[in-house]
Amino acid sequence: MTQYLEALSGNVTPEMIAVAQSEFLEPEFVRREVAEGRLVIPANKVHLQKSLQPIGIGIALRTKINANLGNSALSSDAQCEIAKVQYAVKYGADTVMDLSTGADIDLIRQRIIDEVTVPVGTVPLYQVCGELEDILDMTPQHFLDAVEHQARQGVDYMTIHAGLLQKNLPMIDSRLAGIVSRGGSLTAKWMVAHRRENPFYEYFDALCEIMREYDVCWSIGDGLRPGCLHDASDAAQFGELDTMGELTHRAWKHGCQVMIEGPGHVPFDQIEMNIKRQIEVCHGAPFYVLGPVVCDIAPGYDHITSAIGATLAAYHGAAMLCYVTPKEHLGLPNMEDVRQGVIAYKIAAHAADVARQRPHARDRDDAMSRARFAFDWEEQFRLSLDPARAQEYYEESRQSTDCDERYCTMCGPKFCAMRTTQELKQIQQ
Amino acid sequence: MTQYLEALSGNVTPEMIAVAQSEFLEPEFVRREVAEGRLVIPANKVHLQKSLQPIGIGIALRTKINANLGNSALSSDAQCEIAKVQYAVKYGADTVMDLSTGADIDLIRQRIIDEVTVPVGTVPLYQVCGELEDILDMTPQHFLDAVEHQARQGVDYMTIHAGLLQKNLPMIDSRLAGIVSRGGSLTAKWMVAHRRENPFYEYFDALCEIMREYDVCWSIGDGLRPGCLHDASDAAQFGELDTMGELTHRAWKHGCQVMIEGPGHVPFDQIEMNIKRQIEVCHGAPFYVLGPVVCDIAPGYDHITSAIGATLAAYHGAAMLCYVTPKEHLGLPNMEDVRQGVIAYKIAAHAADVARQRPHARDRDDAMSRARFAFDWEEQFRLSLDPARAQEYYEESRQSTDCDERYCTMCGPKFCAMRTTQELKQIQQ
Repeated sequence: MTQYLEALSGNVTPEMIAVAQSEFLEPEFVRREVAEGRLVIPANKVHLQKSLQPIGIGIALRTKINANLGNSALSSDAQCEIAKVQYAVKYGADTVMDLSTGADIDLIRQRIIDEVTVPVGTVPLYQVCGELEDILDMTPQHFLDAVEHQARQGVDYMTIHAGLLQKNLPMIDSRLAGIVSRGGSLTAKWMVAHRRENPFYEYFDALCEIMREYDVCWSIGDGLRPGCLHDASDAAQFGELDTMGELTHRAWKHGCQVMIEGPGHVPFDQIEMNIKRQIEVCHGAPFYVLGPVVCDIAPGYDHITSAIGATLAAYHGAAMLCYVTPKEHLGLPNMEDVRQGVIAYKIAAHAADVARQRPHARDRDDAMSRARFAFDWEEQFRLSLDPARAQEYYEESRQSTDCDERYCTMCGPKFCAMRTTQELKQIQQ
Repeated sequence: MTQYLEALSGNVTPEMIAVAQSEFLEPEFVRREVAEGRLVIPANKVHLQKSLQPIGIGIALRTKINANLGNSALSSDAQCEIAKVQYAVKYGADTVMDLSTGADIDLIRQRIIDEVTVPVGTVPLYQVCGELEDILDMTPQHFLDAVEHQARQGVDYMTIHAGLLQKNLPMIDSRLAGIVSRGGSLTAKWMVAHRRENPFYEYFDALCEIMREYDVCWSIGDGLRPGCLHDASDAAQFGELDTMGELTHRAWKHGCQVMIEGPGHVPFDQIEMNIKRQIEVCHGAPFYVLGPVVCDIAPGYDHITSAIGATLAAYHGAAMLCYVTPKEHLGLPNMEDVRQGVIAYKIAAHAADVARQRPHARDRDDAMSRARFAFDWEEQFRLSLDPARAQEYYEESRQSTDCDERYCTMCGPKFCAMRTTQELKQIQQ
């Protein structure tokens, strides 16, 4: 039984109760959302028997963020990737995806599952591609075996690019950036070379059987997501989306949980339309958005370009945001990049939660405002998304003066607006 | 004659022509926008005789960004502030405000005006407050003298908090963060202690006479802007805004150019309403927005919290965005903070320009996308908002491999989606 099938049967699982408690909601409400397919609880039965603490992803819940980690052939060893995963979770990643494509990927994945308490996602095609000399040598059975292997390891959700079809491929000819999804491009190459339909589409039912057995949540990948502003919202993207909507229904019929992945690179004015269209076409399945970045000219700062798009996406209904680090388009993130990426996305998710007026979303902001007005610096650090960084900057600015501490280090005592406000209140009394 | 009066008389000035050329617009259109009060060209006649290159600020134009610089009693010498100003302009600040409150402020201001080609703004009250032992000793004449002195130096626009009135002050009692505008809090303290109306409101006509003589553009300051999410869109803020609308008309009657300053701290869902209300209440005068930050819990990262709000503000019609650096709420920015703040705001302004489909706004993004697909790294750096940073990150990631350079350093050759796309196109041919 998956969470989805339990919910359909009217059963409230311990995982639904945990989600309800952490979100200030009623368990029965959570069950109903799971049954409607609008809320997923990615919790592989194997991982649940280890240290997984279940979370929910859905439009009715606090916006979640995912951090992508994993090595490439060019960079990083296992130890270092595990450290980055722990760092991402420390700063607030709600889930992590292990996107390793280099050495030791089986070992890295297992260690991440064993060590973290958050749901872990993967793109199983990377393992297949890594193990073969050439992706063209892949058979559907290779892929099914990899999915089963990873499911047995305890992976909680998997991204599989089952929605891009032969009929969509000619549509990329008018693009500037072609296919920018790694899994999408490898799948397309296989399809073109073998003149066959997408194997993950053709074997979708067999994949669902494996996913259901372990309750691995689907993350139907958007292999044709736009890779630049020019390519956003084009026929290739929306053609694939229609197939993703069809597959959502098929996965539900198999009793699976489903999320949908989304773009990518989208101009700011097209984001609301993209989110609403996805939700409609995919029957309300939770939308898991990569960014989107809202301009293409800021390499080195794409945690910012994408946090802007991500906030708007979450505001209009995206349920989970996949972080982007400052290294996007340039290289794999180091520890500091992971920190920057996670915090940028905590900001985006939280700003959207406040704007959507989710229960208690603004409590921490209000506590911060009280601490600011009271010049309670320790409390300000404690309430910060990154206490160490806030304190570090404060101490850089703080200098020994003969004044008391009741002023902000930005302006100094004579020009501190909050200090002046308090003085004028004293005059008034 | 000010730009505004010239425009009303039907004259197209050289400055209007320069603005039109840089914005792909017709000079007559620019003249009409200036005459309607929807576009300002802050260009003090004194500064124009030096090296000022005029720019326009208005809803019909490319979104502009301002960088605040200047020392405080706690930090930074003149040389260092000048260097920061030059750095901000190098990275793309369209205007700079010198907000110095510490030593040598007269010297710093003069050197900035002499050395930069962008419009320079100030808050004249800071000079008055710095020169007096206590702000309560200020007389209206002190202030008029400071404004005249700075106008003669060549300041292009001045922020004066003329809109907060006695009747608004009781409205701050329900706030968590009181008054967070430095100028606003000092003005309020003076008003409370002397039991008098706002002196800048009372001497508004005299101020307009000075502004008109040099064509200093008004930036009517929002002294009661909210300083936290809780306080946003409250009676104090909108009470002051109504007065700012009244003053806009009065300034226009004197022949002055006018911008309006806005918040501050605003939840994401209230930004559109705030922009539209300001534009309506202030009769279309260009809106100059500080951020706004969209959450209060990220000290150390407020360049990001505010770039999110700023993008949405510009999308809905804000004409200029005042940057926020990572040091906001904690201290004054150093060189790297200035760079981070300026780039974050170039991103916000550009993303909004693309979304508003301003002429040629997306050209550079499309050129970047072509360079990415062609693996032309030099061209990618050249097109970047921060070429040096992009190249630095690239070179960190690039390692000697026996592969050619036709792959992205993020994923390596085997998993490079754009390389794979090109391979599949070869198969297709």
